[in-house]
Amino acid sequence: MAESMKGLRRTHRCTEISNGNIGQQVTVMGWVQKRRNLGSLIFVDLRDRSGLLQIVFDENDIGAAGFEKAGTLRSEFVIAVVGGVEKRSGATNPNLKTGDIEIRATELRILSEAQTPPFPVEDGINTKDELRLKYRYLDLRRPELQKNILMRSKACQVVRDFLSQEGFLEIETPMLTKSTPEGARDYLVPSRVHPGNFYALPQSPQLFKQLLMCSGFDRYFQLARCFRDEDLRADRQPEFTQIDMELSFVDVDDVIDVNERLLAKLFREVIGVEVPLPIPRMTWAEAMNRYGSDKPDTRFGMELVDVSEEVKGCGFGVFTGALEAGGTVRGINAKGQGAMPRKKIDALVDFAKGYGAKGLAYLAVQEDGSLKSSFAKFMTEDQLKALVEKMEGRPGDLLLFAADKTKLVWDVLGGLRLELAKQLGLLDKNVYKFLWITEFPQFEYSEEENRYVAMHHPFTMPMEEDLPLLETDPGKVRAKAYDITLNGTEIGGGSVRIFQEDVQERMFEALGFTKEAAYERFGFLLNAFQYGVPPHAGLAYGLDRLVMLMAKMDSIRDVIAFPKVKDASCLMTDAPNVVDEKQLDELALHIVEQEN
Amino acid sequence: MAESMKGLRRTHRCTEISNGNIGQQVTVMGWVQKRRNLGSLIFVDLRDRSGLLQIVFDENDIGAAGFEKAGTLRSEFVIAVVGGVEKRSGATNPNLKTGDIEIRATELRILSEAQTPPFPVEDGINTKDELRLKYRYLDLRRPELQKNILMRSKACQVVRDFLSQEGFLEIETPMLTKSTPEGARDYLVPSRVHPGNFYALPQSPQLFKQLLMCSGFDRYFQLARCFRDEDLRADRQPEFTQIDMELSFVDVDDVIDVNERLLAKLFREVIGVEVPLPIPRMTWAEAMNRYGSDKPDTRFGMELVDVSEEVKGCGFGVFTGALEAGGTVRGINAKGQGAMPRKKIDALVDFAKGYGAKGLAYLAVQEDGSLKSSFAKFMTEDQLKALVEKMEGRPGDLLLFAADKTKLVWDVLGGLRLELAKQLGLLDKNVYKFLWITEFPQFEYSEEENRYVAMHHPFTMPMEEDLPLLETDPGKVRAKAYDITLNGTEIGGGSVRIFQEDVQERMFEALGFTKEAAYERFGFLLNAFQYGVPPHAGLAYGLDRLVMLMAKMDSIRDVIAFPKVKDASCLMTDAPNVVDEKQLDELALHIVEQEN
Repeated sequence: MAESMKGLRRTHRCTEISNGNIGQQVTVMGWVQKRRNLGSLIFVDLRDRSGLLQIVFDENDIGAAGFEKAGTLRSEFVIAVVGGVEKRSGATNPNLKTGDIEIRATELRILSEAQTPPFPVEDGINTKDELRLKYRYLDLRRPELQKNILMRSKACQVVRDFLSQEGFLEIETPMLTKSTPEGARDYLVPSRVHPGNFYALPQSPQLFKQLLMCSGFDRYFQLARCFRDEDLRADRQPEFTQIDMELSFVDVDDVIDVNERLLAKLFREVIGVEVPLPIPRMTWAEAMNRYGSDKPDTRFGMELVDVSEEVKGCGFGVFTGALEAGGTVRGINAKGQGAMPRKKIDALVDFAKGYGAKGLAYLAVQEDGSLKSSFAKFMTEDQLKALVEKMEGRPGDLLLFAADKTKLVWDVLGGLRLELAKQLGLLDKNVYKFLWITEFPQFEYSEEENRYVAMHHPFTMPMEEDLPLLETDPGKVRAKAYDITLNGTEIGGGSVRIFQEDVQERMFEALGFTKEAAYERFGFLLNAFQYGVPPHAGLAYGLDRLVMLMAKMDSIRDVIAFPKVKDASCLMTDAPNVVDEKQLDELALHIVEQEN
Repeated sequence: MAESMKGLRRTHRCTEISNGNIGQQVTVMGWVQKRRNLGSLIFVDLRDRSGLLQIVFDENDIGAAGFEKAGTLRSEFVIAVVGGVEKRSGATNPNLKTGDIEIRATELRILSEAQTPPFPVEDGINTKDELRLKYRYLDLRRPELQKNILMRSKACQVVRDFLSQEGFLEIETPMLTKSTPEGARDYLVPSRVHPGNFYALPQSPQLFKQLLMCSGFDRYFQLARCFRDEDLRADRQPEFTQIDMELSFVDVDDVIDVNERLLAKLFREVIGVEVPLPIPRMTWAEAMNRYGSDKPDTRFGMELVDVSEEVKGCGFGVFTGALEAGGTVRGINAKGQGAMPRKKIDALVDFAKGYGAKGLAYLAVQEDGSLKSSFAKFMTEDQLKALVEKMEGRPGDLLLFAADKTKLVWDVLGGLRLELAKQLGLLDKNVYKFLWITEFPQFEYSEEENRYVAMHHPFTMPMEEDLPLLETDPGKVRAKAYDITLNGTEIGGGSVRIFQEDVQERMFEALGFTKEAAYERFGFLLNAFQYGVPPHAGLAYGLDRLVMLMAKMDSIRDVIAFPKVKDASCLMTDAPNVVDEKQLDELALHIVEQEN
């Protein structure tokens, strides 16, 4: 039975009441966290968005009927309570914001009864993800998720405030738009009015934001929902949110400047963390050479060292073979891990093989200075000494080496470096290390498609000095592209855009598009370029991932109110689902039966 | 040929420069509005988002090469200019913010050349909509559209600021969700992972925002993109934006209070209009009786008057017939229109017939007090006198009457009232009249479906005193629903929600849903109601229409950056379009060939 709140009006949220309210009458409303009967009193912890508040029911205050009603309260009942604020009669609770006060109830209404929830509404529960997601509306009541969603809301507001103050206009771009095959797989939306035709949901507002620059809006931003129909990995969602921006009459430094101030404000106001400015910058080439990654985690060192010179001509075929094949030999120094048991080292070798390495060579510098190694026997003492010196190996260190094509060596050691850091507890979530990565390669070669593909996207401006290489040596062209990384995660990226029709056409050519194909896909943008387009550049953040890091969560699911699972379904609503035949008829669509 | 902006940095937008900058060197960038050669000087109006600025090119300042370059400038070229700010040498232009200054250019770069645009980039052009929409990026350069998009951005920011300050959290709800047949037609999104299954794009975040209240977020808002696959009328778009909100532990007055303060702040800060609070309220029944509309335009009077009593038993069969059939006779008084020519009156009759009226009776009170009428001959002098008196007819007035079923009479006279106001110039766009409409009927009877359908939606709470009528006389049940109207347009609406499972089930029953059907569609909401749900209520505004009224535009297209046309296509991108066979294969879909 549900009572009405008629005649009552909430005066405070739970933790808005404090010592200063003692003696006042208040009306509070929320959920019963728990009830305990203690002697002749009933205690209830009342919960709302703000936190917990203790209510005391005493028959002397509330009368027999009210007291009896209080005795029926169970977890998750929604109640309204009128009462006086008093100093706690029992022990104070220093863990609670309201730990030294309580409300002595004079009126109680049960606004909504509740069945026993399938799992307790509290943090630290050990409930299967499937159950939590099916009852997402209950899971969202837990303080941790409440805090995350609140933090996300705050973060969005800070971003919007800052960008508005900086002269950015928030402009909405269409969701029902055109399918453009470059990039990931589109979600399609069949048109009823134009049977056989489809809209696509945007993978990003890229083309529209560039058009807005053509239109003279100068500075644009949007917290834009984007869609990619890809097979989901742990940290992906079919729909996600970008903080998307674009600026006119700017170059790389302008974009970096405004974004550094944005990040500093965001981290200061939302989680009280000071971001030292300027944020360090590193070229892509340096990042790969030093960290084997284009998003290096710089919370710890353990940098890659190129030892190709040192091992050249040594007797170890794995090393010399890699060099002869045009590759490199590089190592990392796991400081103080010289005594790592063989079994753990073998696990690291397996880990490296998972990245495609043929193996992993190791060399432990014992505390007495002697060496324990998988390959020492193939090298002279001088060669070993030079190698250890180059690696800055000290007694107690473990040196790990990979020898292969450079790209593979980067990947293996980059991955190994992170794995070791994880094992050694070097990844402190309370430390926030930002890093800009600049001068990305313009193209990467796709073995699958047997052609160069754009590393960022086809509208990215090459560095001026590399423009002549577009036709002669595309692999060497560097782009005016930049990523902002945080603790080894790419949280955003962008580029200066091509704004010259002729450069854009050369770019499409390098990508193997015919002029016709390019016009069919991006014609409206190329057309727009004919009517006066300003130099422009932009950047987009993955909001979900950014908030995840701010909230110190491990999955973006924990900062999205209603996330989907790996097969892109929603366990709460059961979307996607089958629809009426009539709906398909209207769309002139027929479902092709699947063979089993 | 495009020059680089390398080494230059914009110091000001055009109208950020004023008298106070005289003597300073500035760098400005923008579009050439026009160039004029005057004697030995070249003048260019430079345009950016902020407005216009005059640039003067003098060979003595900029040298021969620069001067020659300036001579090649044409409209819509994008240029960068370095120069000194000076008092205007020629006549000042009081229409321009920068009308008393000019920049004497010392450096000019052409950042982007431009073809002659298909229409001039200026206000008041008489260009076909189709052409403007195809080249939307050029149309958006016009000052009027620039102003509208800027205003929309500002409005969004004010809304978000206000709601954040009021304790609302902005929470994103899914776009890929479940098709729920109640309501308008869904846009569907085929699932690739689950062939034969579909997501639906949300018509509104209704169910999710109610779930967020179940989750204890207390106050939610979102500027939410919504989708409806309906045949487009002039003022509809397939995708549109709602200011969507929901509040817990509130009743009607709380929702109205926070929204009145929101509207007042919005109109004050964005367009400098003071909204007097409180905004008047009117029940639905009163609005229909007085204005024949549930969104009455109260910028003018011309209210409906029920004259059924006065004409009862008169000799005019049209009147008495309507009364005998259970209908009513009502009139409006078009003040001062007594001399309206017969031809114009006939046009009004036709207008009324368009609403389904069988005709329109009129009675003109001549300046000499005599009556000219289509029906006077059927009535006695006393009857006529009583009728004129009831209508407050004065010499020179035109009285118009409709007799039919009450609902039709409301529609006809409600429409006629607006048509007359338009003809008489009573619709002043500078006047903003807000009005709350409350106590809507819970249901309306659908002749088509032969059942009651929800007037608002099936989660709307009936007024407590009408609950017993749910089973006995559903047509009489009033809902705790409210609309906010502005100048005769519904700009928003909402309701207190049902939060009791049993009431919700009775509601579904009244709507003719079986329990199974209801659970199939809304099961997750009904399930949520079992675990403790707070009383809650909400409201949503149509942002596009709201901004349209603020910007004094006639179409929402003028406040949307990239709108679609009536057949839901985009003339700029050509969306929707055909897609690759491979994309359809992946979705297990086949297009049914259309018969011609």
